[in-house]
Amino acid sequence: MRALILDLDGTLVDTVYAHVFAWQRALAEAAMPIDGWRIHRRMGMSGGLFTRAVARELGRPLAPEEAEAIQARHGELFGELLSERRPLPGAVELLAELREAGVAHGIATSGRRPEIDASLAALGVSADTVVVERGDVLRAKPEPDLFIACSERLDVLPDECYVIGDAVWDLLAARRARMLSVGLLSGGYGEDELTRAGAFRVYRDAEELRHSLDELGLLP
Amino acid sequence: MRALILDLDGTLVDTVYAHVFAWQRALAEAAMPIDGWRIHRRMGMSGGLFTRAVARELGRPLAPEEAEAIQARHGELFGELLSERRPLPGAVELLAELREAGVAHGIATSGRRPEIDASLAALGVSADTVVVERGDVLRAKPEPDLFIACSERLDVLPDECYVIGDAVWDLLAARRARMLSVGLLSGGYGEDELTRAGAFRVYRDAEELRHSLDELGLLP
Repeated sequence: MRALILDLDGTLVDTVYAHVFAWQRALAEAAMPIDGWRIHRRMGMSGGLFTRAVARELGRPLAPEEAEAIQARHGELFGELLSERRPLPGAVELLAELREAGVAHGIATSGRRPEIDASLAALGVSADTVVVERGDVLRAKPEPDLFIACSERLDVLPDECYVIGDAVWDLLAARRARMLSVGLLSGGYGEDELTRAGAFRVYRDAEELRHSLDELGLLP
Repeated sequence: MRALILDLDGTLVDTVYAHVFAWQRALAEAAMPIDGWRIHRRMGMSGGLFTRAVARELGRPLAPEEAEAIQARHGELFGELLSERRPLPGAVELLAELREAGVAHGIATSGRRPEIDASLAALGVSADTVVVERGDVLRAKPEPDLFIACSERLDVLPDECYVIGDAVWDLLAARRARMLSVGLLSGGYGEDELTRAGAFRVYRDAEELRHSLDELGLLP
């Protein structure tokens, strides 16, 4: 194994619950109330896929303009609710260690620039770090495109990459990209959910992962 | 089995994610940032126990006034964030059905009046429904006091009561009260977490529970 591909929200930055609540408010304002837990379990999908799933749950199709308006309102509310992005424990140190040890790594997120810029800045991600975002690929998670594109930019074969993520969509996309995956509890999924979705190991958070890099055979 | 004892937040009303986010903000404002998922997994405990757990995580004791100030700020933020309480799917119908069928039932919550009044009103809980709240007992969940008090007010023996809850604290408290428990996914825990904490069955939400009352041997 030669590279780590890391998800962003819930894996490196503590943004999941603000996202859930912002979606819940945006949907309620549009007279489409959806249970919080159902939103939570859909985090990490692209916003487009997410609003389509919402439409299925509501039992009626969403017009494209309607879906766009809700997505825009979510972005607005998210910005208001979370003025500061907080790295999850160990995230900054993990990235620094990978860098120092010369382990290839990149970030692959269903989020979009410029929304993700504040998170990357909070993590101290340098300009030369490989970051693949929603706008770089045709299809977001659970399609494998983001991870495949990241492995190509790292110049590492897919089956030599680990994916690190907090959502079952990361793990499903990893499997479809023929990559091994590791789950983190820091996005609020339960351990068994991640294991059943194909995680090879489950760690609490980036901090525990950081102390387990040798278990993954990544350090020289 | 003769009675159902129901938790409130995450079981009957869709308030868990607003609570998590309000705690996250209140704690961050007090310079005690705690990961969202760790807050989520502590929901359903009494506020007092919760702030003590936070102190352990921070590695320093909280002064009582400090804990009280954070709790007050949480209540304030929660009210601002969630102006309307939304019953979870099937919750209103479940309560109406139990009433009509003459099945003994009550609500037992770590929440406190008057904070819970809006939730009870949204559910259409009548004045003669048994409601046991934090102020009625000495110790909140995971201690069994709330459930024991509820069974006494229903005049049903503990081992003839089911507890219905969304958090592992409900299920632990139920076990300590010698009651069977049923888990609901509507608070955002995973199915296995609830099963491992002792849930006899796990349903998606109140709606699925409502259609499964015969499986629990509760209907005549």
